[in-house]
Amino acid sequence: MARARLRELGITVGQLTPGSLNAITDVPGVRVGYATLVADAPHVIRTGVTMVWPADMDIWTNYVFAGSHSFNGNGEMTGLVWIAEQGLLGAPIGITNTYDVGTVRDAITAYAVAKGAPQDFHLPVAAETYDGRLSDIATFAVKKELAFEALDKATGGHIAEGNVGGGTGMIAHEFKGGTGTASRVATAGGERYTVGALVQANYGQRELLRVDGVPVGKEIPIKDIPSPRRGRGLAGAGDQPGPSPDGGGSIIVVLATDAPLLPIQCQRLARRATTGLAWVGGIGSNGSGDIFIAFSVGNRVRHGEPVSNVRMIAPDAMTALFQAAAEATEEAILNAMTMAETTVGNKGVTAHALPLDRLQEIMRKYRRL
Amino acid sequence: MARARLRELGITVGQLTPGSLNAITDVPGVRVGYATLVADAPHVIRTGVTMVWPADMDIWTNYVFAGSHSFNGNGEMTGLVWIAEQGLLGAPIGITNTYDVGTVRDAITAYAVAKGAPQDFHLPVAAETYDGRLSDIATFAVKKELAFEALDKATGGHIAEGNVGGGTGMIAHEFKGGTGTASRVATAGGERYTVGALVQANYGQRELLRVDGVPVGKEIPIKDIPSPRRGRGLAGAGDQPGPSPDGGGSIIVVLATDAPLLPIQCQRLARRATTGLAWVGGIGSNGSGDIFIAFSVGNRVRHGEPVSNVRMIAPDAMTALFQAAAEATEEAILNAMTMAETTVGNKGVTAHALPLDRLQEIMRKYRRL
Amino acid sequence: MARARLRELGITVGQLTPGSLNAITDVPGVRVGYATLVADAPHVIRTGVTMVWPADMDIWTNYVFAGSHSFNGNGEMTGLVWIAEQGLLGAPIGITNTYDVGTVRDAITAYAVAKGAPQDFHLPVAAETYDGRLSDIATFAVKKELAFEALDKATGGHIAEGNVGGGTGMIAHEFKGGTGTASRVATAGGERYTVGALVQANYGQRELLRVDGVPVGKEIPIKDIPSPRRGRGLAGAGDQPGPSPDGGGSIIVVLATDAPLLPIQCQRLARRATTGLAWVGGIGSNGSGDIFIAFSVGNRVRHGEPVSNVRMIAPDAMTALFQAAAEATEEAILNAMTMAETTVGNKGVTAHALPLDRLQEIMRKYRRL
Amino acid sequence: MARARLRELGITVGQLTPGSLNAITDVPGVRVGYATLVADAPHVIRTGVTMVWPADMDIWTNYVFAGSHSFNGNGEMTGLVWIAEQGLLGAPIGITNTYDVGTVRDAITAYAVAKGAPQDFHLPVAAETYDGRLSDIATFAVKKELAFEALDKATGGHIAEGNVGGGTGMIAHEFKGGTGTASRVATAGGERYTVGALVQANYGQRELLRVDGVPVGKEIPIKDIPSPRRGRGLAGAGDQPGPSPDGGGSIIVVLATDAPLLPIQCQRLARRATTGLAWVGGIGSNGSGDIFIAFSVGNRVRHGEPVSNVRMIAPDAMTALFQAAAEATEEAILNAMTMAETTVGNKGVTAHALPLDRLQEIMRKYRRL
Repeated sequence: MARARLRELGITVGQLTPGSLNAITDVPGVRVGYATLVADAPHVIRTGVTMVWPADMDIWTNYVFAGSHSFNGNGEMTGLVWIAEQGLLGAPIGITNTYDVGTVRDAITAYAVAKGAPQDFHLPVAAETYDGRLSDIATFAVKKELAFEALDKATGGHIAEGNVGGGTGMIAHEFKGGTGTASRVATAGGERYTVGALVQANYGQRELLRVDGVPVGKEIPIKDIPSPRRGRGLAGAGDQPGPSPDGGGSIIVVLATDAPLLPIQCQRLARRATTGLAWVGGIGSNGSGDIFIAFSVGNRVRHGEPVSNVRMIAPDAMTALFQAAAEATEEAILNAMTMAETTVGNKGVTAHALPLDRLQEIMRKYRRL
Repeated sequence: MARARLRELGITVGQLTPGSLNAITDVPGVRVGYATLVADAPHVIRTGVTMVWPADMDIWTNYVFAGSHSFNGNGEMTGLVWIAEQGLLGAPIGITNTYDVGTVRDAITAYAVAKGAPQDFHLPVAAETYDGRLSDIATFAVKKELAFEALDKATGGHIAEGNVGGGTGMIAHEFKGGTGTASRVATAGGERYTVGALVQANYGQRELLRVDGVPVGKEIPIKDIPSPRRGRGLAGAGDQPGPSPDGGGSIIVVLATDAPLLPIQCQRLARRATTGLAWVGGIGSNGSGDIFIAFSVGNRVRHGEPVSNVRMIAPDAMTALFQAAAEATEEAILNAMTMAETTVGNKGVTAHALPLDRLQEIMRKYRRL
Repeated sequence: MARARLRELGITVGQLTPGSLNAITDVPGVRVGYATLVADAPHVIRTGVTMVWPADMDIWTNYVFAGSHSFNGNGEMTGLVWIAEQGLLGAPIGITNTYDVGTVRDAITAYAVAKGAPQDFHLPVAAETYDGRLSDIATFAVKKELAFEALDKATGGHIAEGNVGGGTGMIAHEFKGGTGTASRVATAGGERYTVGALVQANYGQRELLRVDGVPVGKEIPIKDIPSPRRGRGLAGAGDQPGPSPDGGGSIIVVLATDAPLLPIQCQRLARRATTGLAWVGGIGSNGSGDIFIAFSVGNRVRHGEPVSNVRMIAPDAMTALFQAAAEATEEAILNAMTMAETTVGNKGVTAHALPLDRLQEIMRKYRRL
Repeated sequence: MARARLRELGITVGQLTPGSLNAITDVPGVRVGYATLVADAPHVIRTGVTMVWPADMDIWTNYVFAGSHSFNGNGEMTGLVWIAEQGLLGAPIGITNTYDVGTVRDAITAYAVAKGAPQDFHLPVAAETYDGRLSDIATFAVKKELAFEALDKATGGHIAEGNVGGGTGMIAHEFKGGTGTASRVATAGGERYTVGALVQANYGQRELLRVDGVPVGKEIPIKDIPSPRRGRGLAGAGDQPGPSPDGGGSIIVVLATDAPLLPIQCQRLARRATTGLAWVGGIGSNGSGDIFIAFSVGNRVRHGEPVSNVRMIAPDAMTALFQAAAEATEEAILNAMTMAETTVGNKGVTAHALPLDRLQEIMRKYRRL
């Protein structure tokens, strides 16, 4: 059975309606680019870079508001001290593997320099999850050029999911994980706003996986489909570092909206990724870097402007956006899993894709299909 | 059908085993006291005070570690600036209604003074949720003496749930809410630890209510059982303030454990109440004060001791405690609802109890019973 | 020599120009009210309440933006969870003593109810510093009515300083402390903005006191003018709780500005009280509750408005406001001390006023006068 | 007159006694390494890397506790999400320039891999300040090898100051800045503890510079000694990015102590760098990244240990450590300035060293020498 997005399988999660693409690119101006690095020799590499542009090239001097939340900080997202201070995001957001996140961070600045873009903003946001279970991470395979490629390739419209970009070597709930996206339309104060999510999902225990509340993970036990996180070659067995068998790993969530939020409201929105994550079964395991960032393109702040006129959505209107953010996050994770393909990685470690027929069968058993 | 705890209905949530009482009082030394105030004249009052003692009377000078998290800060929990600074909790924790939380806060200090206890610690933690939908909150009915009563009545062992203490006038997922408790035993590093939760649940939309992933709220629509938050007399209709119809309200969660945590680890534990809340359907609506505090009795810090010897559980061991905290929170909320009884309050507003037979029927429909 | 404000002594601190009143009331619309409670029998009471109104009575539904910072959280300021979440302030700010801060907090809500004001906002900000060294704090002398009095008496224009309102029983740098205020005018982006500070100063070691960098504290040692914090009857000597001889105590700083700040910018401004405090010699001793709140009247957010149009000052413009906030805080503390009068309190403890002639003499010695 | 440390000039700041080296290396086990990169062709480079080892090579698996504070977050310090979550530091801390901080961050992991050190810890702390005024920063001159060199060269004992390592291209208070260090011995609970500071000072306005309270900056106006931040070639003049003329720039402060602190106590200590910074005249200008990290070698947490026995100093004892941290920070900044040498950088921009004879003369004028 070919890989498919969750809704293509007839499975619906959440109560709100997705945008037309059911992707973060439903938010006007948002673009996503990927660069994927897969090699079997001389080293087994399953890695890459994902770039989320909040807007066009003018982002360098025409900022958007942003806010972040760390649900479990066993990970890295650079630039957060700045985001906490100013609430301004003035560059694309990069996502890659744990060892190369610094390189990708510097690459964003280098790209601005190379393009002749004004360099006023040089505190980029770059995040990571650990792909050292499937990829030979100690080779430091990601170079600045790979980040440039992801930056250059960014597009709106339909975007790829699963084994792509930074999501290439991911593992989620002990199945193959990766990159996923989804969106929701929320109505607040008579206006329609879109909230989109893009995730790099690399976390979670099998037993905790749920789809629309159905205990899918318990229905597909490790003895049926083995876990790439258990057995020989695990952390603790001494041969390599890595997520612990308790379900370590990480998830990065990028939320975007066109609702006119202030920075403090972006922080609130980012916190709701926790809710969507919980719905799928993520509890923020100790070894997990569950770090979320939300930005709003509903306000733009032009560098150098003495006073900026901005708009703030009413506090009460946030509830609809919160639900949208939680639902978009939930579905983006599930899309990452249903789109990801079985991957054999370094040292023969195999991450099996979530079997879609089995998923449908379980949903039927529990009266959801 | 008599009110019952969730497990008495044959419904199990979570994967870990509860403690023997399935209550926060499973954590050694923890005691809970209630004082309930119900009157129909001259004012309709449905309120009260709940007190959670982390330990015996020696708590005033023999502190425990604590940490907090605000998932949605539309509420009050005093003492958090101190908890963030020192990580020390040296007094019982009070929970009451929104308008009287200051009185309860001061009462904790007054109690210490009255008992001749050392007064070194005078930054008590007192929290609130809004019961002005069922109770005539503008009468400021809670006096210090009511708080003293709750302090005096505290016991270990079995404790009441539902319409009791601070939980008397609560509404949860548009059914009658209240106070609930639960616990879990987690194994970490070869040791068994208990995590207990006590909640004052006063939040949530009907449609979002889930029990073990089953969409119970959607199965019991407002047209079947009316909501105390909709229709005449609501906020926005001009006659009184109160939670908005979008599911406003609040939830206070108190987590206790005997695992030897540092303050920073208590903060981490507190954050996991978010996960348990999400599993029941709480998204942190804008109007909600979803504020959580966790303390550990696994370390005691004696006032005046130059250097205290304390123990810190390994980071990896936190994962089991996180799951325990999430599950205990989830079940404590559900216990609050299954134990709460239908209440007619101020201006005839009625909060219907969650119908237990219907709950069981729905769980059966979705193959969980 | 009569008590005087710092500038009346010929002493200037900082580089920016004060507003016309050199007070927080230079910020348009800001009003301050005091209620002072002094009694010698049956108990020795030296306490009171201070109220800072960000605006007129419409504040209940026409909010201002606010942000806070806790430099050393050994104290209480209620309402901060809400401020962190929403960045909205919709009530006057109260300041009183440690044991009665809850009463003052609830009183603000009660006042709104009594005045028939809409009650939507019921998470007031009330702060405290400990006056138990001079006042018999265990009598819980402050009642709601005293808070109402302070609310009612609020005025713009010239406001009292020293032994007044919540500042009545304060001790600063082991001299008599109290309430003080000051302001600065800052130019940013071609506009003139005012930053005002009001402090309740109750902290600090004698040796660390500085005036414009001059080591005034070291020049007036304890052997010359005794400290109310040392000798018989101190904490540790067993007879009563209280600030430790290391210079415990607390300082609350309220900053106001008419610059159009967002909530996140108010947080930044609040943090600069740390700088002004440091210049006078405050290091945030362990026992000190050094908690700061800043609000901007440069934006108003009307309750119920679907989308609010607000203005945001350019990040670069914040530097001038930061300097203004630091300087206003510094001078407000010094005004509190130069205006406060020697006070004999409970158990005969005496807090001596900073001797003004001696202060001038020292400033001359170090070439500042 | 040869460059000298502040005390060699006869100038003393603070009240506590320094350690024997008056350096961060007074804290047992702490080592510092520098790699400096100075070139005039093909590009003018004035940059480098500083590495602070909290302990020996066993740091990778035998962690110390740490905590951070961002006073003004216009800068980058990686790893802080982890530090906030776990309070554990398991790698050396790197400091370099703004554009290359990612490279230095990744280099710390690469070093661990290269040395065969266990790689469990891969969330390193690397910080930056901007040297693009003196160095051609857009060349991205720092490579991993330079970071390795700084790591390899680390030593205890006397360490270099001024134009060295990451401090090579710094500007402080519009004089030449750089790297500086100092220490203090504090007595608490009958024990003697050392607090050491190392700073990379690159911030500040001339007019605000103070030495022991004396307004040195005002006494040496820009017209006497020009500022490298004003005049031709400045940000805003269009030819290059950089700190704004208002005194932008940044300061990174690393604090170390042997007092047995918990993570939450390290956070408290880190916050006191603000006080020392204020004493020299730093107000956290908008453009400044004033980010501080404190660690304690007084506890070690061994990776894999199920429960660690750790010690916690009494809260009251923190006051002495706070003063020590503030004083060490203050003196470290001043040492950076008195040791730094005049530097001609990119495009001929000249950063003049603080003239030491003039400094002494001013201190004499104000009766401090």
